Amino acid sequence: MHVYLDNNATTMVDPAVTEAMIPFFSEIYGNPNSLHRYGTASHPAITKAINQMYKAINASDNDDIIFTSCATESNNWVLKSVWVDKILNGDKNHIVTTEVEHPSVLSTCRFLEEQGVKVTYLPVNDQGIVEAHTLRSFITDKTALVSVMWANNETGMIFPIKEMGQICKERGVLFHTDAVQAVGKIPVDLQNVHVDFMSMSAHKFHGPKGIGALYIRNSEALTPLLHGGEHMGGRRSGTLNVPYIVGMGKAIELATQNIEEKMALIRAKRDRLEDALLAQLEDVFTVGSRENRTPNTILISIRGVEGEGMLWDLNNALIGASTGSACASEDLEANTVMLAIGADHELAHTGIRLSLSRFTTDAEVDYVIESFTKAVARLRAISSSYAKVQPTPGGKAAECNIHH
Amino acid sequence: MHVYLDNNATTMVDPAVTEAMIPFFSEIYGNPNSLHRYGTASHPAITKAINQMYKAINASDNDDIIFTSCATESNNWVLKSVWVDKILNGDKNHIVTTEVEHPSVLSTCRFLEEQGVKVTYLPVNDQGIVEAHTLRSFITDKTALVSVMWANNETGMIFPIKEMGQICKERGVLFHTDAVQAVGKIPVDLQNVHVDFMSMSAHKFHGPKGIGALYIRNSEALTPLLHGGEHMGGRRSGTLNVPYIVGMGKAIELATQNIEEKMALIRAKRDRLEDALLAQLEDVFTVGSRENRTPNTILISIRGVEGEGMLWDLNNALIGASTGSACASEDLEANTVMLAIGADHELAHTGIRLSLSRFTTDAEVDYVIESFTKAVARLRAISSSYAKVQPTPGGKAAECNIHH
Repeated sequence: MHVYLDNNATTMVDPAVTEAMIPFFSEIYGNPNSLHRYGTASHPAITKAINQMYKAINASDNDDIIFTSCATESNNWVLKSVWVDKILNGDKNHIVTTEVEHPSVLSTCRFLEEQGVKVTYLPVNDQGIVEAHTLRSFITDKTALVSVMWANNETGMIFPIKEMGQICKERGVLFHTDAVQAVGKIPVDLQNVHVDFMSMSAHKFHGPKGIGALYIRNSEALTPLLHGGEHMGGRRSGTLNVPYIVGMGKAIELATQNIEEKMALIRAKRDRLEDALLAQLEDVFTVGSRENRTPNTILISIRGVEGEGMLWDLNNALIGASTGSACASEDLEANTVMLAIGADHELAHTGIRLSLSRFTTDAEVDYVIESFTKAVARLRAISSSYAKVQPTPGGKAAECNIHH
Repeated sequence: MHVYLDNNATTMVDPAVTEAMIPFFSEIYGNPNSLHRYGTASHPAITKAINQMYKAINASDNDDIIFTSCATESNNWVLKSVWVDKILNGDKNHIVTTEVEHPSVLSTCRFLEEQGVKVTYLPVNDQGIVEAHTLRSFITDKTALVSVMWANNETGMIFPIKEMGQICKERGVLFHTDAVQAVGKIPVDLQNVHVDFMSMSAHKFHGPKGIGALYIRNSEALTPLLHGGEHMGGRRSGTLNVPYIVGMGKAIELATQNIEEKMALIRAKRDRLEDALLAQLEDVFTVGSRENRTPNTILISIRGVEGEGMLWDLNNALIGASTGSACASEDLEANTVMLAIGADHELAHTGIRLSLSRFTTDAEVDYVIESFTKAVARLRAISSSYAKVQPTPGGKAAECNIHH
């Protein structure tokens, strides 16, 4: 049985999405900026996709949703353009973010530090989230931007974006959220939450890789990252990627329609998997409370078993999982979020992320429970370190934080 | 009959390219950065595409070819990162480009001027090209970069990139070329031409819209435009767009294999079309010598007939053409290149670009000749200005420059 449980890294394109895109390669292929019928033929499909995007996140008509090539582009755009607009050409000098952002935010912040920008990296608590009140004391008169992810890619933990948005609004500071792990997984209602900029990525919700978007509240000014032929009102140039725009619209509609029902179905499978692993295995730990986690994610730590060893055994059983962010997974480094929440270095190397999707079946869950427990037994039997480790009291309690 | 003659704006995706991409949406969908079999399953196809790219432009193993989301991104990347690396954090202050670059270069240069960068815009001669010797006198000790297009999108005129590359090499200045209108249309051999950076776009050679590339000679240092998860050796982050990478590789292979034969076939149709229009119509003019033009392009000016009127009539005949760059075509402005080469404002409003592809048939050419001449007759009959215009001596000579 093939089981793909790495849906926080990327997802299968929903076959209905693939089908919706195909006519726009070799049949309806004009440049939407062209005036002739070959150009305008794609306009209804683009309009439909834009409407699907607005509806999915409950954006208002005054807001902009600009298609980009990925959330990495969206994140780079916001951070670098705020740097140009408010710091290089303004009187600000400071950005606030967190220790556990996606590399596209953290690497960009390190680049901006090299350019003289002050960056504050907010720490996470033992649940793996940044508490909203922490933010308040770090905003200064020189703060140009606050950038905090909506949900974490490695743990699935959901951050208090509503409260943080309120704080930023009160202080008159621009607020950006990388919502790549939230959109399509949990309700995102931008009439209810105040964010100025929000990054999205289609391939995290069964759309294609290579398209993302940036939501911009009330058409807030922001220097383009891609200057050029004035596409999308001059906000992001480059010939429109019509098939992927159509695909992203279709994918976000499918992911967010009746999202509460979809969440309940995924959550039930996730919880059954998590309960079984915690019940059947000694000395395993999951990160963060389930109530405050995206419903598809488990980050589980297995004392005495290297994450890479587990990935190997799971891979041999045709199960795809991850030690953390795919964006860093070729490096085989310790899980950065687990380190941030206070796991010791050895334990941080044992994290395995299982991330489900709406395509995950009950039979797959059964198969993963069986394969996972077998792999742990095998790897512990040959482990040079596990026998020496004292079993940890309380290790079997569900949803404990990591004790160390 | 449907006839698409706007291939400099965008092209139909070759059905063989579409077919090659489809398995990578809903079947082989893992993140190539993931360690498991679902991630590595795409590696052979990505490797193949990269090899296709290297072969098509004759890059060496020491060079990098980095996939981007479009040539607009490639152009922005080079210009903005040279600004950061050599001007903001270096002792240079100057960039040289031309008056007739694509908007993604010109708009970026205007942005850089706002940031204090000095930009020289080289003028074109009456053939619509920048002469190489012009460049020499504008390079100073403060010049960080020269950026000149390989072929112009509106006229198809081919610039002396080899000679300019030699001048830049001698002067120790980085040289970038936007080769969007050259790659796949004419031979591009980077062992024979010295460029440090070269921008490409798949959708100009029957690949998909939404992917481009940047060639970087000898892995020259260049700050990323997109920082993040260290994809593509840290040079351009963002989850790899596997289907489009596969598609771009396939498309560039199909476009560049036996390119001389393909050029000859397109050139024969283009020349037949151009000869017929010049023979059958009074007071029409084409821009630039055929020998120095991409073999698929005609920019024709029709005295007394507004370009938009012609587009309208052609569109009604199911023929897709353009008044110039699709990137600016919604604006209905005078053709900027024609203004640059010295056409008067009235004539610059009459330019129609016909750009063929390898899919253009002889029957389509016949149909266009008939429809085009009919449209000109109809529009001149209702024109308020044409009757007053004195017929221009020599107006029927093929390949004349624009006289005014």
